[in-house]
Amino acid sequence: MACIVLDAMGSDNYPHPDVEGAILAAQKYDVEIILVGDEAILKPLLTTVDTEALSISIVHAPNMLTANDKGMNLVLKARRPNSQNSIAVGIDLVKNGKADAFVTVGNTGAAMVTAYFRLGTIPGVDLPALAPIIPTATGSCVILDVGANTDVKPKNLLQFGIMGSIYSEKVCGVKNPKIGLISNGEEEGKGNQLVRDASLLFKDSNLNYFGNIEGKELAGGSVDVAVTDGFVGNVILKIYEAVAKLILETITKAIKSGGLVAMLGGLLARPALRKVKVLLNPSEYGAAPLLGANGLVFIGHGRSDANAITNAIRVAKEAIESDVIGSIKVAIEENLKT
Amino acid sequence: MACIVLDAMGSDNYPHPDVEGAILAAQKYDVEIILVGDEAILKPLLTTVDTEALSISIVHAPNMLTANDKGMNLVLKARRPNSQNSIAVGIDLVKNGKADAFVTVGNTGAAMVTAYFRLGTIPGVDLPALAPIIPTATGSCVILDVGANTDVKPKNLLQFGIMGSIYSEKVCGVKNPKIGLISNGEEEGKGNQLVRDASLLFKDSNLNYFGNIEGKELAGGSVDVAVTDGFVGNVILKIYEAVAKLILETITKAIKSGGLVAMLGGLLARPALRKVKVLLNPSEYGAAPLLGANGLVFIGHGRSDANAITNAIRVAKEAIESDVIGSIKVAIEENLKT
Repeated sequence: MACIVLDAMGSDNYPHPDVEGAILAAQKYDVEIILVGDEAILKPLLTTVDTEALSISIVHAPNMLTANDKGMNLVLKARRPNSQNSIAVGIDLVKNGKADAFVTVGNTGAAMVTAYFRLGTIPGVDLPALAPIIPTATGSCVILDVGANTDVKPKNLLQFGIMGSIYSEKVCGVKNPKIGLISNGEEEGKGNQLVRDASLLFKDSNLNYFGNIEGKELAGGSVDVAVTDGFVGNVILKIYEAVAKLILETITKAIKSGGLVAMLGGLLARPALRKVKVLLNPSEYGAAPLLGANGLVFIGHGRSDANAITNAIRVAKEAIESDVIGSIKVAIEENLKT
Repeated sequence: MACIVLDAMGSDNYPHPDVEGAILAAQKYDVEIILVGDEAILKPLLTTVDTEALSISIVHAPNMLTANDKGMNLVLKARRPNSQNSIAVGIDLVKNGKADAFVTVGNTGAAMVTAYFRLGTIPGVDLPALAPIIPTATGSCVILDVGANTDVKPKNLLQFGIMGSIYSEKVCGVKNPKIGLISNGEEEGKGNQLVRDASLLFKDSNLNYFGNIEGKELAGGSVDVAVTDGFVGNVILKIYEAVAKLILETITKAIKSGGLVAMLGGLLARPALRKVKVLLNPSEYGAAPLLGANGLVFIGHGRSDANAITNAIRVAKEAIESDVIGSIKVAIEENLKT
């Protein structure tokens, strides 16, 4: 049975959504769950459930990493062998083979840095990449990197493409995923120096390379994987969410100020509008994998609710069962040979 | 009276929207308009209007630049003194003092390159920047650069900030505009190398510097000017448009598939939804200035209609009358001194 460690002190409203999400996941899916966090806080939350039947256990971690842990302070905590925060303890369980994947909706930077120092990277991968899924007109698209690496080289982008392709195939179930390179103009030859150099590597690779993409190809669903550096990817992710929010709010405002008829219309159309909101809700996708780390790590939004955490655990389970790490190892090795 | 040259062969459906937009502008605003393009095509379109009363004239330009004009071919046409395409002829009228601004909704790259080579830049400005306006929750925001420069230095970003600030003040009417630097994370110290270095220059400047911004500050209207390089700016502009379109289409689809009640609701709410579409329509803003060129140049969408072209002419008139070029010259000079 797949064994997943959950950082029980991760969400903005920890530990309730985290523990509730874990219980839901244990009930819904065939998984073993280890909660890491302060045992004194967590134990009382499990008294009403049959933890043995559900395969839920606790591993004590007295400390937490927060938004204040950054810079050198964070690096030290990430590297120190005896770190007792929930992220370090959880990741060590994966490292030591006690669990198959680590899931957290805590501080993204802290989780990335801790994973990088404690797990290292898959041989041949220079930098791990955070790879969330965004909604498109035709379904969804994996975009990477969105966080870990702000200054990268063309070969890093190629590695992102290889890892994203495996993830799209194994976890999203896409056959022969189409890979696009985010650029300012879809025409060949467009792009900054990084993109122009990387596109040559993609063309020479055995990936299903679509070419340069812009906003309309990304949102329109022309590709299954969108590759970019962590700076541009993070900016895109934030813009995506912010524009979606802006438009939904503008519509609500326009309906409210449009008089009785518009308000009645808004009321009648509400279930349809709600469907759109759900579609745009990142919590449906649970959490994003940190691809390239030498062990499965998933990082979700701090504002995740129990449902989002259950989804994150489901996604981690799928990644374990489809052997994402093993497949990335093989694909990266093949690429190094060519 | 402000004299504006319009590329009459610019729009995707040239010359009708272009000429119609010019006539509308001449009727609405106190401006003199010179149409550049093929006289044989343009003359018949003016037979029904009193061109003398409206101050509309034609300057003959037998050739056109199209999407096929790129690379070295474009550079040669942009530099050649006797180029007879409508963009070169129009820009030369500004250069030679025969007109105060040039407006085109033709090929963006062709217009930028031609302006760069024929007008040069304002002393102290290394690179001109394309600076469109995007809608936000509180109004609008100037974003630059979105097209001209994909690989820039920190000092270029500062120049963009200075020019954007002047434009926001003079043309958008914002007092003491707030300037944001687009980054992956709003916290100080976040960003790639370029952003981290540029933020130091902004802090030392006399601009009203807001700090780093992400999607939520941009779409939320926290700043009046958003500064970034042409690669990221172009990606953002395209994502902005594409996500807005994705959401409006998803809502329409959800309403249509939501049964009779939802469809009735959609019908009743239609005026409100249409208001949102208009708000998101870039044609309302007409065209974007190429700030830093040593002469006023405005570039709009190829799919502009007559209304968008009228708006572009209005914006150009405002830039002329508020002496945007003179103010940028002064601000850049002051910055060079510090």
